[in-house]
Amino acid sequence: MSYNVDRSSVFSFALETGISGDRVSSKRYLSNLRGMVADGAALEEMIKKEDMLVYEFYEMGVPEHPGDLAFGTSICYPGKVGGEYFMTKGHFHSILDTAEVYLCIAGRGLILLENLEGDSSYEVLTPGKMAYVPKRYAHRSVNIGKEPFVQFFTFRADAGHDYGTIETKGFRKLVVEQDGDFAVIDNPKWGGK
Amino acid sequence: MSYNVDRSSVFSFALETGISGDRVSSKRYLSNLRGMVADGAALEEMIKKEDMLVYEFYEMGVPEHPGDLAFGTSICYPGKVGGEYFMTKGHFHSILDTAEVYLCIAGRGLILLENLEGDSSYEVLTPGKMAYVPKRYAHRSVNIGKEPFVQFFTFRADAGHDYGTIETKGFRKLVVEQDGDFAVIDNPKWGGK
Repeated sequence: MSYNVDRSSVFSFALETGISGDRVSSKRYLSNLRGMVADGAALEEMIKKEDMLVYEFYEMGVPEHPGDLAFGTSICYPGKVGGEYFMTKGHFHSILDTAEVYLCIAGRGLILLENLEGDSSYEVLTPGKMAYVPKRYAHRSVNIGKEPFVQFFTFRADAGHDYGTIETKGFRKLVVEQDGDFAVIDNPKWGGK
Repeated sequence: MSYNVDRSSVFSFALETGISGDRVSSKRYLSNLRGMVADGAALEEMIKKEDMLVYEFYEMGVPEHPGDLAFGTSICYPGKVGGEYFMTKGHFHSILDTAEVYLCIAGRGLILLENLEGDSSYEVLTPGKMAYVPKRYAHRSVNIGKEPFVQFFTFRADAGHDYGTIETKGFRKLVVEQDGDFAVIDNPKWGGK
């Protein structure tokens, strides 16, 4: 579904939940995280009980023009698989040299970042905090709180998504609960080990 | 003031007010609107009493790279000059073929749009509503409410600002109060008349 970006338009999001009545969101369930979590057995146990919604986001279908902007909200729900917090798959941009902006509007979360050369970092977000994702960095949103982690995002409309690199190799870091708070630790399976 | 967009970073904004403690905002007062309002005499009368703050916004100094994004908040305060609501100067982008995204996070306002060919439109924003400003359109924010009108904006970092065209010609439309609500009317002085 796309729309005419050559006319002005308005989209509505509920600031508390990130949900928009104007579009149908894309939804990712526990089963979509197969191969992406540290504890695959814990994931399968959870799926047997209920294939829960982990996150959803809006793809507005903005045409891939370098002068346009893709935008929407992303909502990552609270939860854990084993000790690992619920998270988005994460992606590089297909055009690597394009940045992204995330404004947190509800909840408490973290953006995990890494580039192809192995530089890794993260930023903690609460409402009103905005993360700048630099060009060339893969990024993943992680809910480290108890409420939905809601962000408004914008990136250049032609940036594209490369999910494959992360699906194959994973992120170098995991975000897990330790002693009641989050900890960012090395991913022992990074690189497909 | 600029910063390193090649590292991740976080900026904080108060969602209720749009104010950031991380940067000093750019401020525009009544005296900065000379030549831009319909009722110049009313403006001078107001300035004599107090050169009030009309709006402020953040310029983060993101380097002008086509892969980067400029972002910040803009806060237009409530008020009127004659019957005309407080508003920003408005601008085209220097690179005309670049869009902009505005997410309203507080207040009630309007984005006034027009292109060089004379097509004109507007969008009313309340919290959670996001306006897509198409490529090639000048845009101005107008506060039609009683509280500060706060928006989070993003555009391509190399887009640039052309304020001169609007400073010289004005917008084709004015936003004024009529019978207790806003009305968008023709600007009799448009084009420097």
